[in-house]
Amino acid sequence: MSLPAAKSLHVDTRGKGTYGITREIQCFLNDCGLREGQITVFVRHTSASLVIMENADPSARRDLEEWFERMVPESTPWFSHTTEGTDDMPAHIRMALGRTSETIPVVGGRLALGTWQGVFLFEHRSAPHRREIILQAVGS
Amino acid sequence: MSLPAAKSLHVDTRGKGTYGITREIQCFLNDCGLREGQITVFVRHTSASLVIMENADPSARRDLEEWFERMVPESTPWFSHTTEGTDDMPAHIRMALGRTSETIPVVGGRLALGTWQGVFLFEHRSAPHRREIILQAVGS
Amino acid sequence: MSLPAAKSLHVDTRGKGTYGITREIQCFLNDCGLREGQITVFVRHTSASLVIMENADPSARRDLEEWFERMVPESTPWFSHTTEGTDDMPAHIRMALGRTSETIPVVGGRLALGTWQGVFLFEHRSAPHRREIILQAVGS
Repeated sequence: MSLPAAKSLHVDTRGKGTYGITREIQCFLNDCGLREGQITVFVRHTSASLVIMENADPSARRDLEEWFERMVPESTPWFSHTTEGTDDMPAHIRMALGRTSETIPVVGGRLALGTWQGVFLFEHRSAPHRREIILQAVGS
Repeated sequence: MSLPAAKSLHVDTRGKGTYGITREIQCFLNDCGLREGQITVFVRHTSASLVIMENADPSARRDLEEWFERMVPESTPWFSHTTEGTDDMPAHIRMALGRTSETIPVVGGRLALGTWQGVFLFEHRSAPHRREIILQAVGS
Repeated sequence: MSLPAAKSLHVDTRGKGTYGITREIQCFLNDCGLREGQITVFVRHTSASLVIMENADPSARRDLEEWFERMVPESTPWFSHTTEGTDDMPAHIRMALGRTSETIPVVGGRLALGTWQGVFLFEHRSAPHRREIILQAVGS
């Protein structure tokens, strides 16, 4: 693969939660052969976001998910954008509090993630969705 | 235009709210001729931010704006940074909860935004402001 | 230094708070000689984040820090991820509300920061920590 390079990654979610994509990013890095530069991760949706979160103890991610659930309650009475269901507007707001793009440095052919960092898709809708993420490598 | 390329974009706001800049980013992409790579969008202020939000139904953006308004109230009694007015400190905090930079992949000469994604400047001050955004293209 | 270039930056924190790293990024820019492109700042931890915040009046940063402290209280009774102390889970959530990566354009050999923008590491743990940040330059 010649640089710059891009790949479309699909994640089938089972509804709200965090879904690990670190391995897929690592595979893309191996395939494109980037040695020095960066990989941008971009989620093409407005009701799902990205988070680089602790990858060891799943209880940390459960607490994070629960906190987002309580911070933007589905029962908020004054929401006007409600035609798609009570989880729709909270999903947009939770997405806006997270990240749509993350840029991860690549040094010496390796993702510069910390020991405890994993990259996760954060699904904010209740129903299962097929989500698309773009991986984009720039450098040499 | 040769790559890398950059452009300064000015947005005149009418106070608090979200202002679409997707078309301006698309024009920059057309002008610089980037085929594969990424465009970084960077807002040069600490009381305005960026959000990539649903671009179809304006009620979704109104609910988002109202939620930020209520989450960080102007009436917060313990703020000490108040010399510029009651909207100043909430503006900084709302900015910190949003994004200062977004990096959007470009694949085959097209912005890799999803169907429902638009890029918006999120003005957090009450008074109109002239805001500056840097667009920066890297790739080939 | 030839491009792309990367550098590891260490910051010794004294516990919760914001720590300026703009000067270190500027030094890296001077060393690598980037003229047109971008610098990605990436924090390799899940209990510390980045924020590009007002750099003039320290009271703005103190209010920001206090607001994060109150928004995600250490006393939250339902957290399950508590083995590392009461500040552990709030640190992860505050990180998720902030940023792990920021990408700053470089135009004409200068960081395109606004007049009042400074780049800060946002430490969310109570105890002092040695934090590692990767600076990555792409462009020419």
